[in-house]
Amino acid sequence: MRADIDVLVHEVGPRDGLQSIATIFPTAAKLAWIRKEAQAGVTEIQVGSFVPAKLLPQMADSAEVVRGAKQIPGLQVSALAPNLRGAENAMTAGADQIEVVLSVSEAHNQSNVRRSVAQSLEDFSRIVAWRESHGGAARARLTGGMATAFGCTISGPVKVAEVMRVAEELLKRGANQLSVADTVGYANPRQVKALFQELYRTVGTEVEIGAHFHDTRGLGLANACAALEAGVRKLDASLGGLGGCPYAPGASGNIVTEDLVFMLEAMGLRTGIDMDILLEARDIMCRHLKGEPTHGAIARAGVPKGFSPATVN
Amino acid sequence: MRADIDVLVHEVGPRDGLQSIATIFPTAAKLAWIRKEAQAGVTEIQVGSFVPAKLLPQMADSAEVVRGAKQIPGLQVSALAPNLRGAENAMTAGADQIEVVLSVSEAHNQSNVRRSVAQSLEDFSRIVAWRESHGGAARARLTGGMATAFGCTISGPVKVAEVMRVAEELLKRGANQLSVADTVGYANPRQVKALFQELYRTVGTEVEIGAHFHDTRGLGLANACAALEAGVRKLDASLGGLGGCPYAPGASGNIVTEDLVFMLEAMGLRTGIDMDILLEARDIMCRHLKGEPTHGAIARAGVPKGFSPATVN
Repeated sequence: MRADIDVLVHEVGPRDGLQSIATIFPTAAKLAWIRKEAQAGVTEIQVGSFVPAKLLPQMADSAEVVRGAKQIPGLQVSALAPNLRGAENAMTAGADQIEVVLSVSEAHNQSNVRRSVAQSLEDFSRIVAWRESHGGAARARLTGGMATAFGCTISGPVKVAEVMRVAEELLKRGANQLSVADTVGYANPRQVKALFQELYRTVGTEVEIGAHFHDTRGLGLANACAALEAGVRKLDASLGGLGGCPYAPGASGNIVTEDLVFMLEAMGLRTGIDMDILLEARDIMCRHLKGEPTHGAIARAGVPKGFSPATVN
Repeated sequence: MRADIDVLVHEVGPRDGLQSIATIFPTAAKLAWIRKEAQAGVTEIQVGSFVPAKLLPQMADSAEVVRGAKQIPGLQVSALAPNLRGAENAMTAGADQIEVVLSVSEAHNQSNVRRSVAQSLEDFSRIVAWRESHGGAARARLTGGMATAFGCTISGPVKVAEVMRVAEELLKRGANQLSVADTVGYANPRQVKALFQELYRTVGTEVEIGAHFHDTRGLGLANACAALEAGVRKLDASLGGLGGCPYAPGASGNIVTEDLVFMLEAMGLRTGIDMDILLEARDIMCRHLKGEPTHGAIARAGVPKGFSPATVN
């Protein structure tokens, strides 16, 4: 991580946000949003998902978006892929990071990608092998993404031991970093702190670990704080909390990028992100929405009087 | 505090929520709401504010509401008062607890009650004296309420030393407990933890201290978590986040009672509150609103699959 920031905010709105809403953004609109957010100082953006276009038509232009985003100086372009085919396509398009995601919950993984967790782990090995024969780690970093790590809408609670097992498997098979996701907004701060502490004990503190929270039950930023306390220094977020859940109308999606940035900077943790330009990026995004709700308190209430962002001590 | 709970949730919606919205609730509607929430297991409810009716017509029936709420078995009836006259009226009506509130920020206190902080502290002494000559501590507990303890919309940052000074003054003058309020939603988790840690160092851990957060900038529950970590065991909240800020349309008010209860119970902290009955109380409250927005994630998304409230270990 750069030495001049304390926490890396990983924008996932163009992927996790857009894939959850009805409006299909034109490629140029996605790139205008991504460009402005990069200008605000966001250095890692997940720009698309390499899944069949018939499943997620919003993501059909992901290769084109990756290529466009690669033109932005200094931006780490990340993309999501659920399987070998997707990861190949993401690497071919030139993504710097591929998050290969599987669900720790068997039931959720079956429902999502029609594979067992074991099969998805084997897929992960095949993706690493493909990369090794096509340029190796210099070509792309691979993130082992663990969905439903804090609970599952189908099977309920998920065992911490199961998360540890999958994390170790992913690293053993060649993951460069991990991402732990509360995909369905079930986590609470005590659980979050305990799980990340256990994860660092299991895989070591030198492994880069990101946290991905949804604000479905209002605990997103409290969970982000708990992750910070456990040592996490990379957090996913969506501009305007874009996303939501098809089963909970009006529910917010990921934690809100601009609120997260405010929280971090107010706590004295440098993000390298300029709030004013970030809110301009939000405006660009909002212009293309067709009735989908956005979320976030800072866009509405502004920063406190006398507020100053974190600076180098 | 009762031995069978870990955190006391103090409902302030009938005061802080109602005083911030246009709709004037009939007395019977307030009491129906309060009764149902008490039935859910909420043992302390701030039912009104003893201020001139011409300033806050919504609170004109506070004496009647106190008398009605006193009929509910086991309920601690609390009320707010900004000065001697209000506190006398609250005690005369029979409130079990009076929160006498002043702003730590001079500018805010002047703007709110047209007194200096020193004058408000002298008022506090007069209130204690009045109580001593009218039944003493057995009559009512007095809470020293410190508004704008984390920042002020008029003067910006508020010094921690100033909060400590006011806290010590309030206790010296006879406050039975303290309440520290982020009146305008400026606080962040790092600041909250540091301030409460400093406060316990200053006044001792045996003093009962409550925390009052607004969710204006989305950090309400993260701040509540930070207060818990510092040792706070009493938290104010409003059912449905009723309230808001006249300067930020759509902004939420206090932290949302039902979301707070969910967070606490999910963290294994017993509140003694039944979520289903609490949501019934929310329905009763909502029935009387006229277009005012409510907030909260649990009412929309429900609790996680397999969720069980905290139990005695």
